[in-house]
Amino acid sequence: MSEKNKVRVGIIGASGYSGEELVRLMLAHPNVDLTVVTSRQYSGKTIAEIFPRFGQYSRANELHFRDPIAEMIARDAEVVFLALPHGVAAEFAKPLLELGCRVIDLSADFRLNDAETYKKFYTHEHPAPELLTSSVYGLPEIHGEAIKDAQLIASPGCYPTSILLPTIPLLRACLIKPSGIIADCLSGVSGAGRKVELGYLYVECNESVRPYGVPKHRHLSEIEQELSLAAGEQVTIQFTPHLIPVNRGILSTLYLAPAEKFDSKEDATALNDKIAAVYAKAYDSAPFVRLLKGPALPDTKNVTGTNVVEIAWRIDPRTGRLIVMSAEDNLIKGASGQAVQSMNLVYGFEATAGLI
Amino acid sequence: MSEKNKVRVGIIGASGYSGEELVRLMLAHPNVDLTVVTSRQYSGKTIAEIFPRFGQYSRANELHFRDPIAEMIARDAEVVFLALPHGVAAEFAKPLLELGCRVIDLSADFRLNDAETYKKFYTHEHPAPELLTSSVYGLPEIHGEAIKDAQLIASPGCYPTSILLPTIPLLRACLIKPSGIIADCLSGVSGAGRKVELGYLYVECNESVRPYGVPKHRHLSEIEQELSLAAGEQVTIQFTPHLIPVNRGILSTLYLAPAEKFDSKEDATALNDKIAAVYAKAYDSAPFVRLLKGPALPDTKNVTGTNVVEIAWRIDPRTGRLIVMSAEDNLIKGASGQAVQSMNLVYGFEATAGLI
Amino acid sequence: MSEKNKVRVGIIGASGYSGEELVRLMLAHPNVDLTVVTSRQYSGKTIAEIFPRFGQYSRANELHFRDPIAEMIARDAEVVFLALPHGVAAEFAKPLLELGCRVIDLSADFRLNDAETYKKFYTHEHPAPELLTSSVYGLPEIHGEAIKDAQLIASPGCYPTSILLPTIPLLRACLIKPSGIIADCLSGVSGAGRKVELGYLYVECNESVRPYGVPKHRHLSEIEQELSLAAGEQVTIQFTPHLIPVNRGILSTLYLAPAEKFDSKEDATALNDKIAAVYAKAYDSAPFVRLLKGPALPDTKNVTGTNVVEIAWRIDPRTGRLIVMSAEDNLIKGASGQAVQSMNLVYGFEATAGLI
Amino acid sequence: MSEKNKVRVGIIGASGYSGEELVRLMLAHPNVDLTVVTSRQYSGKTIAEIFPRFGQYSRANELHFRDPIAEMIARDAEVVFLALPHGVAAEFAKPLLELGCRVIDLSADFRLNDAETYKKFYTHEHPAPELLTSSVYGLPEIHGEAIKDAQLIASPGCYPTSILLPTIPLLRACLIKPSGIIADCLSGVSGAGRKVELGYLYVECNESVRPYGVPKHRHLSEIEQELSLAAGEQVTIQFTPHLIPVNRGILSTLYLAPAEKFDSKEDATALNDKIAAVYAKAYDSAPFVRLLKGPALPDTKNVTGTNVVEIAWRIDPRTGRLIVMSAEDNLIKGASGQAVQSMNLVYGFEATAGLI
Repeated sequence: MSEKNKVRVGIIGASGYSGEELVRLMLAHPNVDLTVVTSRQYSGKTIAEIFPRFGQYSRANELHFRDPIAEMIARDAEVVFLALPHGVAAEFAKPLLELGCRVIDLSADFRLNDAETYKKFYTHEHPAPELLTSSVYGLPEIHGEAIKDAQLIASPGCYPTSILLPTIPLLRACLIKPSGIIADCLSGVSGAGRKVELGYLYVECNESVRPYGVPKHRHLSEIEQELSLAAGEQVTIQFTPHLIPVNRGILSTLYLAPAEKFDSKEDATALNDKIAAVYAKAYDSAPFVRLLKGPALPDTKNVTGTNVVEIAWRIDPRTGRLIVMSAEDNLIKGASGQAVQSMNLVYGFEATAGLI
Repeated sequence: MSEKNKVRVGIIGASGYSGEELVRLMLAHPNVDLTVVTSRQYSGKTIAEIFPRFGQYSRANELHFRDPIAEMIARDAEVVFLALPHGVAAEFAKPLLELGCRVIDLSADFRLNDAETYKKFYTHEHPAPELLTSSVYGLPEIHGEAIKDAQLIASPGCYPTSILLPTIPLLRACLIKPSGIIADCLSGVSGAGRKVELGYLYVECNESVRPYGVPKHRHLSEIEQELSLAAGEQVTIQFTPHLIPVNRGILSTLYLAPAEKFDSKEDATALNDKIAAVYAKAYDSAPFVRLLKGPALPDTKNVTGTNVVEIAWRIDPRTGRLIVMSAEDNLIKGASGQAVQSMNLVYGFEATAGLI
Repeated sequence: MSEKNKVRVGIIGASGYSGEELVRLMLAHPNVDLTVVTSRQYSGKTIAEIFPRFGQYSRANELHFRDPIAEMIARDAEVVFLALPHGVAAEFAKPLLELGCRVIDLSADFRLNDAETYKKFYTHEHPAPELLTSSVYGLPEIHGEAIKDAQLIASPGCYPTSILLPTIPLLRACLIKPSGIIADCLSGVSGAGRKVELGYLYVECNESVRPYGVPKHRHLSEIEQELSLAAGEQVTIQFTPHLIPVNRGILSTLYLAPAEKFDSKEDATALNDKIAAVYAKAYDSAPFVRLLKGPALPDTKNVTGTNVVEIAWRIDPRTGRLIVMSAEDNLIKGASGQAVQSMNLVYGFEATAGLI
Repeated sequence: MSEKNKVRVGIIGASGYSGEELVRLMLAHPNVDLTVVTSRQYSGKTIAEIFPRFGQYSRANELHFRDPIAEMIARDAEVVFLALPHGVAAEFAKPLLELGCRVIDLSADFRLNDAETYKKFYTHEHPAPELLTSSVYGLPEIHGEAIKDAQLIASPGCYPTSILLPTIPLLRACLIKPSGIIADCLSGVSGAGRKVELGYLYVECNESVRPYGVPKHRHLSEIEQELSLAAGEQVTIQFTPHLIPVNRGILSTLYLAPAEKFDSKEDATALNDKIAAVYAKAYDSAPFVRLLKGPALPDTKNVTGTNVVEIAWRIDPRTGRLIVMSAEDNLIKGASGQAVQSMNLVYGFEATAGLI
């Protein structure tokens, strides 16, 4: 089934929203031969039967979902994406790695460096702590070099991506204080996954806006780990997620304290220039980060369907704060697209291959 | 046309979303005789012709929109609601007051005590500065006594209400610091009014989430005025509004700093109890403030169509912050319902008359 | 708990969307004392705990959901609304009727006059066929007199109401042919009830429009029964429901064949006048039917939140057809409001009591 | 600016929704070099400045909108897409054709063969009647051969496409009667274009479902022209468009009368097989028509973002009717994608080039 010069790809757990998006990206990727898709629920059906919208791709009409058996997967795929619930992913990663596959995990299972922190936030022992040291946090704009050689990539989720990309360059450049960071985040409903629960019914979400998981959300653990790495000291942040009636998109508004006070208009302009320079250095050659100029502010509708994260910032002379805003598609840059970005790095494909 | 024991009411500028909502409330109010509705655009038409959904009320089929002429209005109405754009309202308030009407203004024209601040935020001279001293800021839960005797009531808008009601009791009780307050607010599209602009088209707002007016929004002036009054010192806050694809509803997430640090679990519990006591004292007899208990968090769908504001709070022991969240219907508690609440106070009607 | 001059009301199965709406209507109804609400799931909780938006009503904070036990219900309530799934309602109706309660059933269980037809459409035996002869089809505009004395009222659902009200007067007046009727109907998602199924998740319904249940829907049985009664002969119609991403509202477009051909413009005008006269006679004194005039066409947003059905029609000289369009709120005129309308008739309350 | 082996493309009027979508398709098309985009309103700005979401494409950052001057356009582009309002397109087509460009017009200006019919439906004289004889109706699945050699292609709009593709094969095969056809159609709001009018504001469309343009819509003229061609006799249809709160998507439900009556189950099965065979012959090798099998019915969410039209059908033994349902993306298969499909035909590109 495979073609020359293409990497053979498997997707484990392809029935959720991230899995579905990953299938779409893999069907269209010029350097990929999608050879395995698994789903216990849909075993025996073709991709096109389950996801009619992919019926245009011939592969979607040929390839059948299978039960997820490590040996079979490893035989047919070199790189395996895990689009599984947290906790379940670790069980699959282990045998696949042993069988020689490269594993790109979209769950939170391997994002933490430290099994203790995992236990504190996830309230149970880590299922494979020995893998935490070798796994790489798959944020390509930040850990690109490490990703290239990684055998196990822990691809970050939607909230972390939308918070880390705008913040890490500023922390690294010491332009903001590591303390007092607030991330106020708005997520579309697909962020909850394809969960059949009362709270995610159309009538319960439509014409509704609500916070949830206040004040301690699990993803804080990985966000703070990465921010602490960037700051060189322990960082604790405030994070408030909200559920918004859109299918896709995350909008994060970050409240940051500039490292140095600015009193005059000149100070403010100088600070603004420094921020612009730091961001330009960090992201001008990053194909999926769009730094907004002029009066434009991020809008999820400008990034949904793409792997791009939009970033804009404003200094407020009245309060002395820096406000940074970002927008992304939670299923693409916040999940599947980002994982593909890592795959492109690993195999030396064009950075934008299959993502534009 | 008028009936005994009812107050004769006029609505000036009844064609916008707030005006329409006010018409609805007045048609159904047991103590009101709606005698005047004006709209240059719809002059000569009945209410039911313009707003078919009110066709059930006989008055909606009898009463015609008229051009707004002060003498005519004052002859037929005792109390006049102004649902006009900022700037225009002041022009109408003056003659109506001179003709003996009580005026409840839904615009921002009379909300500031100080013409200087007005100029700073609205970038032009106040059109009737002499009225600023006598106007009362119409937030019934806070200024109830003053409202009772007011001839000119400046009814606050949606963002201020959603921020002030959760914050003022805490400031008055010195439970939080007056500095460093952040208000991250999400508003439905009707908050922009019935403005025929590209940015408010269905396709531009649907599947879109975006901040706007960062960092300096006009409504900051009245919010800071009222917070300063409560704190007894000058308060400057951070305020970030976002546009969310719902017709109605505002959700505000407030980041506050407790006045005293809490390190232990005991401290946190004690602080929580103090906050609960302060809110209970402030609002337990307020029919339109719902203090949420247990795990519930505010959700706009639980308040849209009502005059209620929902409030919940959480202390975060990790960051030392207090997070307070509120939800309201921007057109009712954030506009028309609140104005009716003031009218009920003035005329000694049941607090909930026409609002439940 | 009960007050004088009020009817004591019970609601059985108050946890679905229709049940919730019924609770709202009963809490606000001036002639009702809501004394019983049942829900196995929520037993022991107050109404306000389950439906926070009703917290403004004192009764919502006092009254607890109970398990549905016929004796207890009959002791505390005179009239009992059944907001239960089809099939379950019949089980409750029987003992309640025997205990002397008046029963208004919102399910389809007693809408058919004939147990055979029931079996054909619902594929099982009717659970209480002996009650079918005494039950009255609760469409107040059509069967008002019979409803007044009914002990068991089978309140029609959303699709039937939106089709029957525009069609029956025309059939009775022999203005249209009984054959060839097509009803193309669009329903909001709450029409599916509070069902926790994949197909009703936000992400599955939002940005989606789709037909379902083509070509044979269960509700055809009652629609055809009532149309046949009006026509005096057996009527078979085409009915296509579609799911539309709104919370509430049904829009029905009906394709009808005028009984007499019209070739000239004069014929068309004459036919139009006849239709107008028939509708006027049928509905001019019906408080919940709004006949649109001029260029206006029905729009669900003009009826949601009300008990009104809007009707407009157009004659097409090109095709010789009559097109009638109707709009209603599926949870009010299409469910709970209609049931209350019947209750008002039975007890001699104002037709609009609690419904305006 | 142009590259070898690529066709140089211009888009005139690139600021509406169809124009924007066309820009997206052209930026990504492997055989296209987008060299001209015009818009009076945006003249001087780059594509990326106006449509930030295309910022990923380098061409979007280089290419500036220009004023639409025929000579300039003809110098830089071989094929020109007109995404202009009806009436305006004709003015541009003429000089561009004379200057040797191939023109693909997305407006209705050249879709009719007959200037008389144009006048009847558009109420004014056709601006370039001499071009009507040479223009080809650009429905690739139906007029593929003629399109290949056409200099002027009149690309059909969204409603016609969704009605014609399901109906023409049945008419050609004489399986349905040409009379009595009803098309009940539901369109997303982008179908109205980027028109800044009250009726298309978010708050006016959200939570609203409504018919419009009943009973005589302009697009009837081209639909009936094409159906008449297929039937070999004059066809008059009933067409009712509705506005639905989604950004994109058209769902059409067609009510058709089989040419031969079927009384028995065997007849129905035979008819069903014939329909299946006719559709299979017409569309099995058409890459953008998806014939649904089994219980699946069309759903706009399965086609939005693609150039695919989904078709399913049901025979109703109760009424003797055939119901055919189709779904498409109004901006792609219903506008820009279809135009690109024609371009691919003309230049001998892969049928799916740039469209999958």
